Amino acid sequence: MEYFGAGANSLPCDSFEAVFTAVQQKTCERGMLPIENSLAGSIHRNYDLLLQHSLAIVGEYHLRVEHCLIGLPGVSIAEIRSVTSHPQALAQCDGYLRKLGVATSAAYDTAGSVKLIKDSGERSQAAIASRRAAELYAMSILAEGIEDNAANYTRFLAVAPQPVTPDGDSKTSIVFTLRNMPGALFKALSVFALRDIDLTKIESRPLVGKPGDYLFYIDFAGSVEDKSVAHALDNLGEYALTMRVLGSYPRHRLEHA
Amino acid sequence: MEYFGAGANSLPCDSFEAVFTAVQQKTCERGMLPIENSLAGSIHRNYDLLLQHSLAIVGEYHLRVEHCLIGLPGVSIAEIRSVTSHPQALAQCDGYLRKLGVATSAAYDTAGSVKLIKDSGERSQAAIASRRAAELYAMSILAEGIEDNAANYTRFLAVAPQPVTPDGDSKTSIVFTLRNMPGALFKALSVFALRDIDLTKIESRPLVGKPGDYLFYIDFAGSVEDKSVAHALDNLGEYALTMRVLGSYPRHRLEHA
Repeated sequence: MEYFGAGANSLPCDSFEAVFTAVQQKTCERGMLPIENSLAGSIHRNYDLLLQHSLAIVGEYHLRVEHCLIGLPGVSIAEIRSVTSHPQALAQCDGYLRKLGVATSAAYDTAGSVKLIKDSGERSQAAIASRRAAELYAMSILAEGIEDNAANYTRFLAVAPQPVTPDGDSKTSIVFTLRNMPGALFKALSVFALRDIDLTKIESRPLVGKPGDYLFYIDFAGSVEDKSVAHALDNLGEYALTMRVLGSYPRHRLEHA
Repeated sequence: MEYFGAGANSLPCDSFEAVFTAVQQKTCERGMLPIENSLAGSIHRNYDLLLQHSLAIVGEYHLRVEHCLIGLPGVSIAEIRSVTSHPQALAQCDGYLRKLGVATSAAYDTAGSVKLIKDSGERSQAAIASRRAAELYAMSILAEGIEDNAANYTRFLAVAPQPVTPDGDSKTSIVFTLRNMPGALFKALSVFALRDIDLTKIESRPLVGKPGDYLFYIDFAGSVEDKSVAHALDNLGEYALTMRVLGSYPRHRLEHA
């Protein structure tokens, strides 16, 4: 809703793969996928799915993850004895929960934990989820921003069947593989450095089953329509075993806490 | 146990932070921390804790993650109606569980889900966890290797109060920060490339609160005792805003599926 606006219709999917299918089959115009979290790292699974499918990245959004303690309407924090949520959300609020001195239990997802509490009708139980989940189920927010580390952002990618041509401040994401030789990555990066193209992300990943070969994720400033970018990618093609441009898209700058 | 041998005593900790405290206070000689998973990515939280504490990395181990379906002794798969585990384990076995046509529910951790099933005494319930968890609770393994993607490895780091000096095939892990300028990373990597030092991992991470500045994780072949490595690190110190050597340690090669 923050990215597409409140007017957009949403179709929840129960797996990342289902998001790709929905966009490919034109059930939806766009898909929205988490690709990395500032605390938990890159979600390799979605990079794998991007490579397995032919969708293009057409946008990005950095969502601030803000956890709320959510209970039944009219309940006070002092009544809470146990808290349920996704294990990662519980872990991210560990300091707060210890101070509160409550028992914890696991749920399949954060929003689902709010529904669980609502259905149980138990005043002593609370869930950890977003403000939006509390609103959705008409539940009460007992505390906000209860995560131990406020620098908690998830970067999402918008995907579509066809690439877009962004104007102005833009970024491009590519994936390529290199044979592991000393200096191989250095040569690959030289195609950007020699053209003053600014990298905004780099990450290596060993290719399981191919000892010594690596996959690289790189994001950089600029669009494939820029001449210098086109030349750099041509050049990279000379070194890389494989290369795929995932898309060029308008840059969304990380909001800083 | 695979890394230290069956003779080592283990002290389970309920948070990553507790592992650091136990080693720092000499309650334990070594700590063992997950640092990256081949599907889920790097665990930034543990990089953060490595930077906040002064422990050294003294070893690494790649553990193959193999999920088992676990039930009460004497139960057959046909009797299973619902499966519980950590949401990530459930997600990694999604294809298998769909074919089985069972309900799923979340647990706080994988081994804990086995204990839950054991305590419930319910023949229709199963858990997803490791072979070792099944053995620990004297439960029955109904199926093995049920994960959708067999290329599932978690890399662990052994940490200790003092660094070690590895012989032979070794690796070194460092963390450094750079001011974001076109070509900054290229210059930083040149200190390795010009000395034929082979990188085995590179990952960038935006520094929240410091727009444009980046943290880099780099692993490379060799030990800080090697002359060329010492020169490269001296050189890197000229470009980097901050730099920390996390440790040199014997290399454990990723077993290939």
